[in-house]
Parts: sequence; C-alpha cells; structure tokens
Amino acid sequence: MERYDIAVIGTGPGGLEAAITAKVRNKSVLVLGSKGSSEKVSKAHEVLNYLGLPNIKGDKMAEAFLDHAKQMGVEITEDRVNAVYSMGKYFAIQGHSGNYEASSVILAVGMTAMKPLPGETELLGRAVSYCATCDAALYKGRQAIIVAYSKEDEEEAEFLAERADKVYYLPQYEYDGNLKDNIEVTKGVKPVSVELEEGKAILNTDGEKFVADGVFILRAQIAPSQLVPGLALDGNHVAVERNMATNIKGLFACGDITGTPYQYIKAAGEGNVAALSAVSYLNELKKSE
Amino acid sequence: MERYDIAVIGTGPGGLEAAITAKVRNKSVLVLGSKGSSEKVSKAHEVLNYLGLPNIKGDKMAEAFLDHAKQMGVEITEDRVNAVYSMGKYFAIQGHSGNYEASSVILAVGMTAMKPLPGETELLGRAVSYCATCDAALYKGRQAIIVAYSKEDEEEAEFLAERADKVYYLPQYEYDGNLKDNIEVTKGVKPVSVELEEGKAILNTDGEKFVADGVFILRAQIAPSQLVPGLALDGNHVAVERNMATNIKGLFACGDITGTPYQYIKAAGEGNVAALSAVSYLNELKKSE
Repeated sequence: MERYDIAVIGTGPGGLEAAITAKVRNKSVLVLGSKGSSEKVSKAHEVLNYLGLPNIKGDKMAEAFLDHAKQMGVEITEDRVNAVYSMGKYFAIQGHSGNYEASSVILAVGMTAMKPLPGETELLGRAVSYCATCDAALYKGRQAIIVAYSKEDEEEAEFLAERADKVYYLPQYEYDGNLKDNIEVTKGVKPVSVELEEGKAILNTDGEKFVADGVFILRAQIAPSQLVPGLALDGNHVAVERNMATNIKGLFACGDITGTPYQYIKAAGEGNVAALSAVSYLNELKKSE
Repeated sequence: MERYDIAVIGTGPGGLEAAITAKVRNKSVLVLGSKGSSEKVSKAHEVLNYLGLPNIKGDKMAEAFLDHAKQMGVEITEDRVNAVYSMGKYFAIQGHSGNYEASSVILAVGMTAMKPLPGETELLGRAVSYCATCDAALYKGRQAIIVAYSKEDEEEAEFLAERADKVYYLPQYEYDGNLKDNIEVTKGVKPVSVELEEGKAILNTDGEKFVADGVFILRAQIAPSQLVPGLALDGNHVAVERNMATNIKGLFACGDITGTPYQYIKAAGEGNVAALSAVSYLNELKKSE
C-alpha cells in the first residue's frame, strides 16, 4: 500500500490550505473528503471577512479554494473516514471506500452538531458501527439498522443488503430513493437511543422501536474521539498546541474541530500551521530512522 | 480624544484581517500602519499558498487585501507606534504623528530582524529614544544622533533639527536627500553599540564614534517588549494563548510577532481570532462598567 507523507482528512478551508502547503513543501499528500469542498463553505450565504476575497458567496469561495488546490496538483479522494489508528511510525486510515496509510495525519473534519445518541459511544464496536461497507461481511444472514444522513448512504445500504438478510433504513434526509426489496425504509422517524439486549441491538426512535443484530449510524462526521482512539479533547474540541499538534505524535488538527471561532480564514490559517508542523514532524521521523 | 473600541497596530494580513472582522462586528476601529499594507506583503515575489489567491505576486496580494479593507470601510492612519500603555480600562498609544486611545489593542506589527544594539535596551528612555518628534522639545540647544532606516525618517530629522543645535544623521538606507545645514549626514556606517558616559550618549559604529546628548534609533519596528511595557514574551515572540490574548488584559497579538511559521494566511487567521477575542473582551468590559 502506498504510504503518503501526509493524509489530510477534510476538504474545507483548513484541509485544503493544509494540502496546498504540503504540496509547496513537496510532500506526497492524500486528501480525503469531498470534491465540492465542505458544505459549510459551499452553502455559505455570503462571507465578508476572508481577507482577499471580499463579499464572496459560498459557492464562489468553494470554487476559488478548489481551483487553487487543483492548480497546486492537489487531488481529492472522495471518501468518508471511519477511523484513524496510530501505528507508531505511521497511521492506518479506514475509509468507507478503502484503507490508506500515511506517516502523518491532519484532521480537518469540521464541526457539525453531532451529539452521540445515548448508548452510542458505549456500544461502538459492538452493537454500533459507523461504516456499513466495512462491516458488511459480518452481516451474512443477519439483520441491520441504518440511520442515514445523506443520499450517498443509499449505496452503503445496497452493499450491506447484498450480505444481510434484512436492512432497516431510516433516512434523516429528504429521501426519494428506490432501494432493494430487503431494505425496509421508514421515513420521518428520529433516532433517540441505542441499547443492547440479549445480544440484539435496539434502536429507539420517536416512533417505533427497531431490533436487529447491529445499528449503523452513517453520520457525515464522527465525533473526533471516536474517529481517533486516544485523541485528547478540550470540551467538544480536539485539544491542540499552538503548532496544531494533538496529543498523538504525528497527528495534527485544524479548523472548527480545534475550537471557536468557527471562521473560514481561521481554519485556513490553522491548516497552514498544521501542514508545516507535519513537515517538521516528517523531518524528525526521517532522522530517527 | 476619541476612544476607539479596537486599535489595530500593523497593516499586514494579520492587522487587516483583524480590522475587517472588527468592522463586521460593528466596532470602531483605528488602524495604524501603512496605506501600502506591509513591505513583507507588497514585496513578496510570489505566494503559492494563500488559499483562494493562487500564485499571486506580493503587490497584487497587497492590492487585494487593501481593496477588501477599503470595501469594508477600514481606513488606515499612517503612523508608526512608539509605545502602548495599558491604563486599566483603556490603552494610550503614542505614535510618531499623534496620540490615540482605544479600549483594546491588537498588535500585528510583524517580525523584522531587529536585534537591539548592545546598550540600547538598558539606555532606553535615557540616552536612547525611538521617536525624534516625541522628544524634540527636550533637545533645544542640544545635540542628537539619529540612526535612520527609511526615507520617511528625514522628516523627523528635520523636525528635530529645528530644536536641536546639531543632528548627526546616519542613514541605513540608500540616502539621496538634502537635509538642513545643521544635520550632518554620514553615509555607510553601521551602528555597533550605545553607551552613556558622563551624561553623554555615545554611538559606536563600524566607522567613527558619535557623541551627543541622545541617540534616536528610528527602526520601522520596535521590539515588542519595548513597544508595550510589561508584555510577556516567549523567546523573541509575544506569548499568546490560542485565542491570541497576551498577558495584558485587552491586548491581543497576531501574525509573525506571535511566532513561526511566518506565513501570510497564518497571520490572517490569527487576525480573525484576535479581533473576535477583542470583541468578547469589549463585551465583558461593558458588562463590568
């Protein structure tokens, strides 16, 4: 497997700035996220204070960022990251569409409202999972519940349903899909909590109660402490030093995930710092070999 | 005297971003610096990694920043700041061309090579001063030495020479001026150290030795600890928290002065954070009144 110098997770201003700065420093960069930047960028109504881009609408800002990245040879791999594991001298990154390796990681996944459900964190890895494609093999002849947050999740549901006997699909978005017969779609119910009872996963909702062998919660974003085991937090945010280092060696963070203010230019500035700190780390790593 | 909500000192990316963000938050802002942004910006050869402005030359970048500031109603007051004094609930700011007051201050003066001369720091306020126009009145019938770093300093020399009997002028730049008769210009000598002997200021250079009643060192930038008495440093840099607060209440810093990396987008990001932290501080201040 190709081992990248730096994996950047997230394609908002923090991630993209980190990626172009890493490119300037001639590092090999894997950028995992969306080819459309981030929704927070592209859907912004109007941004007044990103210095140099006066009075710019979100879609135009996303375009400016993506054009810049493209000019610098940054390619975006569309994938959602499920977990990042520190392996000592490198990181193993588990995505929904593939696995990756990198010597250092920059976490720039943003901050969306994403309070875990009661029971979710406790049952993660047992009754709860964040990646249906990753765990599909375990569901042969079994049943699963998927709580889905975007249209792209339908593909994961289809894949899972090829293995699983039955999939309960609970879209939390405007659903107008047409899924396989063994996928039972229930619209308009909100998940409330997860439980494990006698080996069965139970998802309580504001409507009926769903019972299966496991629950997949396909949030666009996973809480950072669940994304990276052992990552130190400061409240809801990733704890970082001024150089954007986290408590995990070789892992840096930038943007909203590191704390307020949630501002585009703050995220970009931090992305720059995170990238240069990662470059320093890589230099040290090389020396220690 | 008008008391501004926020005084921003410095007109590089940190200062300008702080100014526009303060404007977005409807604060009254005094911006002290240069109408041409900063030399580090305008003279940059080519900047590759300011996200959104790909492959941009320094003069174009300065133009983009200044246009943005102008569109947001930011006006730049051309002055060089000599000292910032915390007065408890406000700051008194001493410039070369005037004095100002503000409830909070954002220091964004950048980082130029500016090691003080041996003896300089010790003799500051006695044999050494940074502002000729401020101290001119004290030089009636006396003699002064000026170490000058830019053409604009010639005006200060002329003003001082109206009071002083004699001024020794040591330009550290390409000098082609034509100063008053009582200003003796010596080109091509570099200052080496300052001493005070029997009430006389002595400037040692790599050429001759100059003796007078005082030495004016007109650097474009003053070391931060001399600019703001009591300001805590971390090495050569101003010590800041993640919210860009310094050890002095109401005083924030951003950009190169807060530490490496010396990058434009990092400075801009920090300017944004400093401005929003200043806004929070102003809100608290108001509540405590």
